This record gives sequence, structure tokens and C-alpha cells, in this order.
Amino acid sequence: MDELHHPEAADIRLVDVLAALGHPVRLKVARSLASGEERYCGEIVTGVPRSSMTHHWRALRESGVIRQRPDGRKLYLTLRRADLDARFPGLLDLVFADGEG
Amino acid sequence: MDELHHPEAADIRLVDVLAALGHPVRLKVARSLASGEERYCGEIVTGVPRSSMTHHWRALRESGVIRQRPDGRKLYLTLRRADLDARFPGLLDLVFADGEG
Repeated sequence: MDELHHPEAADIRLVDVLAALGHPVRLKVARSLASGEERYCGEIVTGVPRSSMTHHWRALRESGVIRQRPDGRKLYLTLRRADLDARFPGLLDLVFADGEG
Repeated sequence: MDELHHPEAADIRLVDVLAALGHPVRLKVARSLASGEERYCGEIVTGVPRSSMTHHWRALRESGVIRQRPDGRKLYLTLRRADLDARFPGLLDLVFADGEG
């Protein structure tokens, strides 16, 4: 698997984070990682075509919302909570406080 | 001009607001309305094709971020600050605090 690009914390841009979180599937992924625990892709989302999920994972990773760690043929995910809290204090709290979507 | 649809405050959804703000042009529009004053469309954005702006205005209006008031052939815009602050406290402050995009 190719090296996955993750932006440096200082390069995370608000507009990209808003766009990444501004989709129901991606918002759900971010919320499902709120605890800080690493999770496997397949645990989080079901019923979404693989090609769509590839797009969603990339949007989340390239915006700086999540970190993806390949392990064999699986991808493990964590939320970049510390980086996001440092860059945009309060944003994730707000996103996780709202349960509706 | 047809009646413009604006969602009720209680129907504003976070995911739609994030998506609306997750674009450089729309984020700039929201920031340019931060003072609370009503402004005319043409004052805020220049150099973006009209067809693109029609799409952007709709995304901002239908998500509940802005209110559009037609006056003759012009559209005047205000930020729905009170509604957004009530629904998602701190979100706009955070968006306006970050100057970069």
C-alpha cells in the first residue's frame, strides 16, 4: 500500500475540516472515533459502497480529521483530536455535542 | 422572483451548516457578514461566475447560514447569527476567529 499522506498539524485548514465533517457519513465516522480509540474501518461504517468509502476516508485524512494506519490489508483509524483541539478549540466538542447530524 | 426557502431555526442541521461553510467562497461570505449588517450580494464576492454564486447562495440559505431578502432585482443578505448561536453555540465564533480559511 502506498504511503498515506497526512497533513502536519500546522497545515490543517478550517475550511477543509468543515468540508470533511459536512457529510453525514464522514460526520458519523468522526463521532464514532470520539472516544480516542483506534478502530478498524469495517467496524465503523457498513452499507456504504467501498468506492464511496475510499473517497470519504481520503477526505477525512487529507483534511487532517483522522489518521489512517495500514496494518496488512486493514486500515486502522484514529481521530486527530489533539491536533484539531489545538488548531480549532471547541470545534470537536461542538460536533460531538450535537447528536442529530 | 420565487419565494426563497429558509429553514426554521429548529430545523437547521449541523451537517448542512458544516457543508455550507466548508468551501472557501462560502466561508468568505459568512465572514463578510459577521458584523451582522445586511449586505448586497455584489458587495461581498467579485470574480466568481454568477452560476457558481447561485449555487453558493442556495447552499448558504438552505443550510440556514444566511437569510436572503429580495428587493427588486437585488438580493440582500444577512447572517442568521442568533439562530446559529442558539443551535450551535460557539461555532460562528470559532469560524470567525480563524482567519486563514
